Amino acid sequence: MRTSGFAATDANTPLHPFSFDRRELRPEDVAIDILYCGVCHTDLHMARNDWGFSAYPVVPGHEIVGRVSAIGSGVSHFRVGDNVAVGTIVDSCMECTNCRRNEEQMCYKRATVTYNGQDRVTGETTYGGYSNHIVVREEFVLSVPDGLDLSRVGPLLCAGITTYSPLRTWNVGPGSRVGVIGLGGLGHLAVKFASALGAEVTVLTRSEGKVGTARALGADKVLLSTDAKAMEAAAFAFDVIIDTVPYEHDLGPYLNTLDSDGTLVIAGSLVDTPKFSNLPLIMGRRRIAGTPSGGIRQTQEMLDFCGRKNILPECEMIAMGDIAKAFERLERGDVRYRFVIDMATMPAAQTA
Amino acid sequence: MRTSGFAATDANTPLHPFSFDRRELRPEDVAIDILYCGVCHTDLHMARNDWGFSAYPVVPGHEIVGRVSAIGSGVSHFRVGDNVAVGTIVDSCMECTNCRRNEEQMCYKRATVTYNGQDRVTGETTYGGYSNHIVVREEFVLSVPDGLDLSRVGPLLCAGITTYSPLRTWNVGPGSRVGVIGLGGLGHLAVKFASALGAEVTVLTRSEGKVGTARALGADKVLLSTDAKAMEAAAFAFDVIIDTVPYEHDLGPYLNTLDSDGTLVIAGSLVDTPKFSNLPLIMGRRRIAGTPSGGIRQTQEMLDFCGRKNILPECEMIAMGDIAKAFERLERGDVRYRFVIDMATMPAAQTA
Repeated sequence: MRTSGFAATDANTPLHPFSFDRRELRPEDVAIDILYCGVCHTDLHMARNDWGFSAYPVVPGHEIVGRVSAIGSGVSHFRVGDNVAVGTIVDSCMECTNCRRNEEQMCYKRATVTYNGQDRVTGETTYGGYSNHIVVREEFVLSVPDGLDLSRVGPLLCAGITTYSPLRTWNVGPGSRVGVIGLGGLGHLAVKFASALGAEVTVLTRSEGKVGTARALGADKVLLSTDAKAMEAAAFAFDVIIDTVPYEHDLGPYLNTLDSDGTLVIAGSLVDTPKFSNLPLIMGRRRIAGTPSGGIRQTQEMLDFCGRKNILPECEMIAMGDIAKAFERLERGDVRYRFVIDMATMPAAQTA
Repeated sequence: MRTSGFAATDANTPLHPFSFDRRELRPEDVAIDILYCGVCHTDLHMARNDWGFSAYPVVPGHEIVGRVSAIGSGVSHFRVGDNVAVGTIVDSCMECTNCRRNEEQMCYKRATVTYNGQDRVTGETTYGGYSNHIVVREEFVLSVPDGLDLSRVGPLLCAGITTYSPLRTWNVGPGSRVGVIGLGGLGHLAVKFASALGAEVTVLTRSEGKVGTARALGADKVLLSTDAKAMEAAAFAFDVIIDTVPYEHDLGPYLNTLDSDGTLVIAGSLVDTPKFSNLPLIMGRRRIAGTPSGGIRQTQEMLDFCGRKNILPECEMIAMGDIAKAFERLERGDVRYRFVIDMATMPAAQTA
């Protein structure tokens, strides 16, 4: 089906209108009219080829919310008109140990990413959610619970699951003491989730100006990481720290705030971790871990949890044509807390 | 009691004979005639003040094996003549959460270390096992199972428990795939323990010359970490890696050999971990951890396990007077795999 989208065609030009054909439905496919798509920092990196593996044209977007417009002959879990969502992956081998334990995001044969990936059947490059239509195999389509504001669901599909997943992996619940470093797209959701899971939540921030916001989001405490005395007093204070800072930064001061057997989980971007002394790791049997989003079953669990608790990200709605401006603001960290593109603003398809 | 030992009296002079008084028995104390003491790399660091907190005179030694010579009035678990051992700690607060969960090595009020520590009652500096006599409260004295060769038990008390403990913390057993980096005092015991626990054990080494030795110690496989192709082929190969390398080294190549959710445990010395890319951590939800020896209950469990399986370190026996030479060889890595001091070689006590 002819589809209107926005694409980067090289590393230096702003995104611009781009029309392309989505594949015809295979038996297992769900066709989705996209209503909203969140803007992830990864979109910016991929549009500009920051990581060196962008294959142009790049149609970004992996925080997709829409409505089912058609289903393949073998689809049993969705009907036309259902509210659905698609996240960072659209396929995987479905056979390896990780896929079989519902961790498709860690598929040993590499999950197919929603954009800039390779379709497992045709080998074509996948195009993401900065478009008005997408076709995805049913196993990778999520149901959006009734009652959630569709215009704010998108960011749950990447920022959301990337912070929800580690909280579940590290068994956060009532009695847990959770620290959250960074209060952006990921961090503000980490605070909401950890709080809703019953944990005592502390935001670690360098900025006194964020104390009020952190509390408004549900944080029980705020710890100024620039206050050496307060940081020292917080030794052994946390069972889990979710570190969402998207640039290289020293882990040393944070490691001391972990309790024995505590874990600092890196949920930020793919950056380097600078040299650190392993003394705090050894003395407290502490751990540093990474986390790669979550599997499909857990993503559905998260959406259902959000439905029950009415958890939604704080969003700023933008028009598709304003994406270049949004990227600029994203780069400056000037967003509270996530841009969402209203796909109704997509310019009419150009004739090829 | 007047005690003969060897001490460092400053950072630059070799250890030399030093006599001192051990405290009179408190009700909870066990007096021990020391038969053997293992030589740990920490002894060398502390004698030379490498870490900046040595309090001279330093009488090193925390891999102590001996025989009970007297007991305090309140001692119930030991009798004169029992074969016993003492490791890296001789006291702790016994009240904090970590002490109550039998992790006294992580006592929140700091366990009293066997040497260069401060006695919790008198505040005196503790003197270690490079001596012919020691007094330790009963809760920190271990029983040596019958049948174990006493001359080789010492290194179990530090090198042993430091590698046994993480294998237990990370649930190593039949079906586990364990990698061991470094084949020194700690590494060779990690191989023996992991193998005895039923795991499949791979030694990761830079030296082809160690293939035979690794296999002789019980390794199922040897992986040359200098062979880039072999390392790439070993992606996702291990559930747990015990890293015993005692100097700063790049973790990057090893992280890729961890399976999803796998952990690299730093069990070496207190060095820095250099900058690394967090990509392998994030993509595989992998973890880096430290480990600080083990608690008293687990140390006894390890000794009992060694008794049942007849696991002992490979040792080279030395005379007390040869300690300076042993330190030199230790520094060059010229020991297979642990020096043990025969305390029968202690020169007669000098009169004060």
